[in-house]
Amino acid sequence: MNIATLTILVPITGVIALLYAWTKARWINKQEVGTDLMAEISTAIAEGARAFLRQEYRVLIIFVIVVAALLAFANAGQANSSWMIAISFVVGAFCSALAGFIGMNVATKANVRTTNAARTSLGSALNVAFSGGLVMGLSVVGLGILGLGSLFIAYDSMTAWDISKVISVISGFSLGASSIALFARVGGGIYTKAADVGADLAGKVYEGIPEDDPRNPATIADNVGDNVGDVAGMGADLFESYVGSIIGTMVLGTAFLQLSEFQTAAFGELSPIVLPLVLAGAGILVSILGSFFVKVKEGGNPQHGLNVGEFGAAGFMAVLAYFIITWMLPESWVVGGSTITAMGVYYAVLIGLAAGTIIGLVTEYYTATGKGPVTGIANQSVTGAATNIIAGLGVGMYSTGIPTIVLALSIIGAFTFAGMYGIAIAAVGMLSVTGIQLAVDAYGPISDNAGGIAEMAKLPPEVRERTDKLDAVGNTTAAIGKGFAIGSAALTALGLFAAFMQQANVPNIDVANPTILAGLLIGAMLPYVFSAMAMGAVGRAAAEMIKEVGRQFAEIPGLREGTAKADHERCVEISTKAAIREMVLPGLLAVVVPVAIGFIDKSMLGGLLAGVTVSGVLFAIFQSNAGGAWDNAKKMIEGGIMVDGKKISKGSEAHKASVVGDTVGDPLKDTSGPSLNILIKLIAVVALVIAPLIA
Amino acid sequence: MNIATLTILVPITGVIALLYAWTKARWINKQEVGTDLMAEISTAIAEGARAFLRQEYRVLIIFVIVVAALLAFANAGQANSSWMIAISFVVGAFCSALAGFIGMNVATKANVRTTNAARTSLGSALNVAFSGGLVMGLSVVGLGILGLGSLFIAYDSMTAWDISKVISVISGFSLGASSIALFARVGGGIYTKAADVGADLAGKVYEGIPEDDPRNPATIADNVGDNVGDVAGMGADLFESYVGSIIGTMVLGTAFLQLSEFQTAAFGELSPIVLPLVLAGAGILVSILGSFFVKVKEGGNPQHGLNVGEFGAAGFMAVLAYFIITWMLPESWVVGGSTITAMGVYYAVLIGLAAGTIIGLVTEYYTATGKGPVTGIANQSVTGAATNIIAGLGVGMYSTGIPTIVLALSIIGAFTFAGMYGIAIAAVGMLSVTGIQLAVDAYGPISDNAGGIAEMAKLPPEVRERTDKLDAVGNTTAAIGKGFAIGSAALTALGLFAAFMQQANVPNIDVANPTILAGLLIGAMLPYVFSAMAMGAVGRAAAEMIKEVGRQFAEIPGLREGTAKADHERCVEISTKAAIREMVLPGLLAVVVPVAIGFIDKSMLGGLLAGVTVSGVLFAIFQSNAGGAWDNAKKMIEGGIMVDGKKISKGSEAHKASVVGDTVGDPLKDTSGPSLNILIKLIAVVALVIAPLIA
Repeated sequence: MNIATLTILVPITGVIALLYAWTKARWINKQEVGTDLMAEISTAIAEGARAFLRQEYRVLIIFVIVVAALLAFANAGQANSSWMIAISFVVGAFCSALAGFIGMNVATKANVRTTNAARTSLGSALNVAFSGGLVMGLSVVGLGILGLGSLFIAYDSMTAWDISKVISVISGFSLGASSIALFARVGGGIYTKAADVGADLAGKVYEGIPEDDPRNPATIADNVGDNVGDVAGMGADLFESYVGSIIGTMVLGTAFLQLSEFQTAAFGELSPIVLPLVLAGAGILVSILGSFFVKVKEGGNPQHGLNVGEFGAAGFMAVLAYFIITWMLPESWVVGGSTITAMGVYYAVLIGLAAGTIIGLVTEYYTATGKGPVTGIANQSVTGAATNIIAGLGVGMYSTGIPTIVLALSIIGAFTFAGMYGIAIAAVGMLSVTGIQLAVDAYGPISDNAGGIAEMAKLPPEVRERTDKLDAVGNTTAAIGKGFAIGSAALTALGLFAAFMQQANVPNIDVANPTILAGLLIGAMLPYVFSAMAMGAVGRAAAEMIKEVGRQFAEIPGLREGTAKADHERCVEISTKAAIREMVLPGLLAVVVPVAIGFIDKSMLGGLLAGVTVSGVLFAIFQSNAGGAWDNAKKMIEGGIMVDGKKISKGSEAHKASVVGDTVGDPLKDTSGPSLNILIKLIAVVALVIAPLIA
Repeated sequence: MNIATLTILVPITGVIALLYAWTKARWINKQEVGTDLMAEISTAIAEGARAFLRQEYRVLIIFVIVVAALLAFANAGQANSSWMIAISFVVGAFCSALAGFIGMNVATKANVRTTNAARTSLGSALNVAFSGGLVMGLSVVGLGILGLGSLFIAYDSMTAWDISKVISVISGFSLGASSIALFARVGGGIYTKAADVGADLAGKVYEGIPEDDPRNPATIADNVGDNVGDVAGMGADLFESYVGSIIGTMVLGTAFLQLSEFQTAAFGELSPIVLPLVLAGAGILVSILGSFFVKVKEGGNPQHGLNVGEFGAAGFMAVLAYFIITWMLPESWVVGGSTITAMGVYYAVLIGLAAGTIIGLVTEYYTATGKGPVTGIANQSVTGAATNIIAGLGVGMYSTGIPTIVLALSIIGAFTFAGMYGIAIAAVGMLSVTGIQLAVDAYGPISDNAGGIAEMAKLPPEVRERTDKLDAVGNTTAAIGKGFAIGSAALTALGLFAAFMQQANVPNIDVANPTILAGLLIGAMLPYVFSAMAMGAVGRAAAEMIKEVGRQFAEIPGLREGTAKADHERCVEISTKAAIREMVLPGLLAVVVPVAIGFIDKSMLGGLLAGVTVSGVLFAIFQSNAGGAWDNAKKMIEGGIMVDGKKISKGSEAHKASVVGDTVGDPLKDTSGPSLNILIKLIAVVALVIAPLIA
């Protein structure tokens, strides 16, 4: 096999993913929708979601054109690289946006069909929900690898450039992905929580407005939000990590160019550069394979089926990676005085796979019902909202411990085995099974929606019981997914960080140098201010939503009695506009600061990258896990718990306290926390893109 | 003047401070106590405070002996330095403990006398409260400079060592100060909030128990806590910063030894080493001078008087420093290829003075009643506890922005003017007016106590009005003081960090090196886990307190009716034991981690120091300011505010929501947040002390 064949095979795995996703989507489409009321509710949700995407994409197009022009202009001196980096950027943005569009479209179809399937059996409901998630997962990896692989082939064959320049230009793809991720994750996060918090609080501000009731005009926006934030947002987040980790590794692979050891390697000096692409392609096939094992019998635990699929895929990937790496790389080579072996690279990949799994499991421990931390928060709710909040903050803080140590050891381990290239390829290893990982993630909000539809459509209790069973598992998988997303963002950012240092020709990031230390400090501060902006945005948007709900109840006669219909569209519009308006400032912060600092002093930008990554990872874990733990503490109390011999359940004072915790946690775990994943990657990508200009 | 005369003059300024503090303490003692009930209450508080100190010191003595032995043993190979570093450590611990003892003793006398003076006039009440604070402030700086100066003279005259070794041995003094600070700040923080939260929540758990009422057995413990945490804890915190900054500068001053430029300087090659001592000595005299300007007329604003004293002292110090520095240092000298000037060193001192003031003022903006941030939280309380909490978290996050930028610019500025020595001496500049700064700080809890006593002793409303006026100002000064404490801790830690690098012979802290990056990550995580431990400790201790309060109300007949007396002592004992028990684990964490990492890899310890400092400063600012803002948002609502045309005041649902915020903020601002100051300094000091062993 020669390099031309191989680099064509890689995009083909992307095509396979998309084709398989397409058959799955067609299958979902063919399932029954159920009653007329169910169809009506699901249509409203689907239309709301599309309305958001339309609005978002309208702004996005302008944004993409402006940034593409800026990129072309800024690189104007660099021969024809200027328009090529702009094209990479546009293609990256397009692929990410398309993946989001497909994923959300299918999710808003799968939700009602999951509800309907739940009228028959748990197994068929799981099948529909998971299939919906799988379409999202495969679209992300398929479009990621197809876009990246095609660009690589095109640039490599069209230009007479050396390979370093080709890869440098491709980094624009990653910037495109990051830009969409910013819109989808930050904007989506603001959308979903503005609707959720607004719907919940309207009842507090105006008398007699039911919370969580179909008559509340914000409920549809709330359901739309689950799709916008948790499906499309998470998808864009992992799309960014996925392509970022691959590009970071490709850049670092150029350090091995012209080494004599690679002249006889499977694909010559390109071997270490195309290796991440090949691993990602293999991961796609493994993900599809894993998806066949996701099944559950009536009365069984859906978690088990998902675990078999996910861990099975990871295990199979671990085996496959061995054969790929030992086949593609020479047994060992020497660079900068130290020896790297193919086995070392393989160990780095294994470290990445293992670290992702461990961080996910630790996240689950800190946020799952029944485990010590969440039980502690539930017990502390008896003495009121304040102790509930204090306990949740404590859990969030504690939960940073093990993941940080795992990351630290992974970094040392991957570097020891394969240098900087090892750190980057560990991220690729972690993300290689993103296809099925994201399927399991996206399954959660689909099941959540399915439950909401069952409630709104007044279906019999056994349906709700089945969807609740799916949803409870969905909370756990969401927690694991969030841990995975943060861990992969950290490793990806570090890979990009190393790539930036190489491209910008920064020899070291010595924090004993005061300028770099100042960069470190400012970088560490950004996640705080960025989070504050995101939380403030949710607060303002929720306030608008509350006012609108109050207006509708005051002005629409018969709404309270259930004889007139609420104006859902208006609420969807408010959330949409607020989300898009409010994400501008944090977005600018994430782009302007690294560019400004970079042109002041490139080493200071290095310090900034280190600061924002370290501080961002910790603050994200803290916020996400505190939020997840509060949510499940509330769920535990709703299920009934015993504290000091007294039964505590729904409607008690302790329950009210736990609702406060849940509401506080909402923006932390769904808006500001996950937005930090984007912040740290986006800043790293921006640094990488401007690296040749400040080198 | 020769060096011998000068180094004797330095400790003499310490003696002057102590003598002046003694006359002030005598004067306070001579003031009237007031009614019998007032005397009884104040005696209970004073006895409770002494009980805590007795228990604490009992544990401390064992701790000090063990650590001193370990120090002597670990340094056994290094000639006679082993027992000298142990002696430095014991003297440092003793001086800090003695300062805490004096300060707390006087504070528990000044509180009731302030109440009594408030029966006559505002001016005389301010005078008593401020005098109480001044005794604490002058004891801290007096014992700090006396201890440090005496050790320097003793070692310098007794041994045949070179000056570098003398200074290395003196770093044990700083470790002693840090150890006491850990006990006083962390233990004190746990004590004060266990009592406070416990007293407040008892009413929620058991029916019919009055919150904030003299019949509640935890109220005395609550008042003791103000003295333990806010007076002794803050004192130990600043004592640690004060001596840490001086020692860090002395260590860095040794880099200039044997430079030809210093042979003709005022005190030869010792000039840059004794400069921080001289500046600190001058700061003592300036602080005493400033204290004369603290006055208020009846009906006037006490804030004005305090500002005149504090800013006046800082201004005078700025002038005096010019003469001291240009007299003591040569006009310029060359080290490592770059030129440092006396004026450059002076500018670094000015930067430190200015940075401390700016950080304090920014802190005030984010936490003061009537300003935008706190008003925002108050307004958000209308929609319940959740939005109050979210708003407060947002304010805490935002508030990290400007202080971080100020710190970053100060670091760059001080370094540009005078290298690493400049960063360290900027910290000395910031801390030179600690005497009056701490007096203004400690005035707050004394006034707070005075108000509590007025309430409990059922004095007429105009007395409470006057103490409230003092207390309101005290909240602002407390906020400024906290900002100052964090800022100075950061600069001190950086000074110690630079000193560590020099002593341990670490050439750089390149975070592109994975081992160092891993250290950075783990360091950044420590403040989270440390904070979680501190908050968990408060939770557990408060739970014990709640049980005890419930028991007393159940078992003591007549307590509810007010005919029987509560067993205050038992509550004081619970807080005391819990505080001492619970501080062991976080304390161990702060000592064991740097030692373990240091012996694994000294550069990794460098990364750890950078991580813990950066992350700790941000997390401390976030926690302290969120807590301060919640507290004052509650106070604003209690004073009555208008939201959307409706009047919101005490007893409303919004007020209840703001109480939740205040309770959540309590452990953040008084336990975990301030404890981080100690964490970052203690880890840096431990690193400095073990530096010669791992060099």
